[in-house]
Amino acid sequence: MTELLYWLDIFGVIVFAFSGALMAGRYQLDPFGVVVLSAVTAIGGGTIRDVILGTKVFWVKDPLYLYVILATAALTILLVRCPKRIPKRFLLIADAFGLALFAVLGTQKAMYLGAPIPVAIVMGMITGVAGGMIRDVLCNVIPMILQQEIYATAAILGGSMYVLFNYLGWSENVATVCAILGALKLRLAAIYWQVSLPAFEIVDKDGK
Amino acid sequence: MTELLYWLDIFGVIVFAFSGALMAGRYQLDPFGVVVLSAVTAIGGGTIRDVILGTKVFWVKDPLYLYVILATAALTILLVRCPKRIPKRFLLIADAFGLALFAVLGTQKAMYLGAPIPVAIVMGMITGVAGGMIRDVLCNVIPMILQQEIYATAAILGGSMYVLFNYLGWSENVATVCAILGALKLRLAAIYWQVSLPAFEIVDKDGK
Amino acid sequence: MTELLYWLDIFGVIVFAFSGALMAGRYQLDPFGVVVLSAVTAIGGGTIRDVILGTKVFWVKDPLYLYVILATAALTILLVRCPKRIPKRFLLIADAFGLALFAVLGTQKAMYLGAPIPVAIVMGMITGVAGGMIRDVLCNVIPMILQQEIYATAAILGGSMYVLFNYLGWSENVATVCAILGALKLRLAAIYWQVSLPAFEIVDKDGK
Repeated sequence: MTELLYWLDIFGVIVFAFSGALMAGRYQLDPFGVVVLSAVTAIGGGTIRDVILGTKVFWVKDPLYLYVILATAALTILLVRCPKRIPKRFLLIADAFGLALFAVLGTQKAMYLGAPIPVAIVMGMITGVAGGMIRDVLCNVIPMILQQEIYATAAILGGSMYVLFNYLGWSENVATVCAILGALKLRLAAIYWQVSLPAFEIVDKDGK
Repeated sequence: MTELLYWLDIFGVIVFAFSGALMAGRYQLDPFGVVVLSAVTAIGGGTIRDVILGTKVFWVKDPLYLYVILATAALTILLVRCPKRIPKRFLLIADAFGLALFAVLGTQKAMYLGAPIPVAIVMGMITGVAGGMIRDVLCNVIPMILQQEIYATAAILGGSMYVLFNYLGWSENVATVCAILGALKLRLAAIYWQVSLPAFEIVDKDGK
Repeated sequence: MTELLYWLDIFGVIVFAFSGALMAGRYQLDPFGVVVLSAVTAIGGGTIRDVILGTKVFWVKDPLYLYVILATAALTILLVRCPKRIPKRFLLIADAFGLALFAVLGTQKAMYLGAPIPVAIVMGMITGVAGGMIRDVLCNVIPMILQQEIYATAAILGGSMYVLFNYLGWSENVATVCAILGALKLRLAAIYWQVSLPAFEIVDKDGK
């Protein structure tokens, strides 16, 4: 992993930890509860990716990630003391950054470890969406992936763009950053203009 | 794995992917959201089994499974265009097929990898029920395993029958198919006649 | 693992299996459904710990754990026949015992396997809280970790105390038992007097 990619990874952990802490704020958790929810959001996806790929889990190898989460959660608690000013959109945007970063970095790690391309894209998606999914399931809110807006699609796009740029022979850093920006733009556009693909809709006979 | 068992496994993936896609249809997901929910349902259980057994995850080794899920989800979206005609029972029946197939095939794989018999039966149960459980948890519906009807019991029966037939020296294919049919019959009977074992009931003092 | 620690581990499995069975009783599950919920609660956390650490999952190596769960669930079903007398507090107390035991034993196992200290404490926390979390998520109740009372904090305290005592050179058994009692006392105090740390509170603009 190049220097740049490492810091992008840390940045992804920070934004996801922040989104977890913000969500925790809606539940009046004590500080350690906030840290737990931050951690689950920030490293849940990458953990599942590493476990499925059978490689050593990244934060077991490098505990810096845990300190970053602790610091992020602590800063969120300390600085967000006037929390009524934080609109829900902030959580969505932090989540979008994490989604785009992790989808591309996850795809990259899987390819680096020799996974076939479709598997690598799925790994990227898992890295990007699983942490937020667990956060939402624990908090008993409907996971973002079940909302109508583009979500999984953005993660798949990011991973696919990385695969394409990589195939085209772009340098590692450029390919990664461009793929991240692509996924991020799609997801942010979906949030701002509520863009969505045509839905697959089944209305149940008995209205359930 | 014999040829027959491989195709049974693929068939299990198809019916579970179909059940995931049908469930997704209740949430107006975009096409990629449907694919994600199909995938989680179809390969969630087997993934957990392989991770716990410490063997290479099956779909990382053989990406054909991912293509099968993609195709199943796409076909479901394209063909189920008049979705009001799909009663909830269809989802239950697809789920029952997946449950029976995966419970037996999961037990078999675990035994093949040298797990002790009780562990193998538990692995079969995990393979059969975990995917559907994750699907239900993500969709915020009460998991089928928490319903009164026979569910986990059918999975355990399937695995146990396979162990028994195997012990009796039946051929691999015959033992597998008979165990699958046994589990399937029990689960379908439970759906049609709403059979259930006597419940273990605790009514809480304060009515919670 | 010393003899004492092994039996403490079994005892943790029993109390968590009991808490899972009690929770199952609220849902009129059939006996096998009760067993499944007991098992998920009792071995879910340790399974995640072992998978993340990349070591062989404990109950795959030693199926005795499965028999203990089976026996606990069966005894709960048979003996708790007048269930209206079981107040919700019983479930909380059983859960507290499991939490304290597993948090310390999980930290210890991770350190024994060579994990860095912060990772070991996180592993202890996962071992202590994950099983109960999965139980609560499956049953669609808000996980205890999202309640205001001290919960994750008790698990982290237990793990940290073990690390400290270990560093101070206390004997394995004494360090473990003292750390367990510390975590247990904190959690029980939180239940009885509803103690909680000052909450990190965000009230959303639109009241969500």
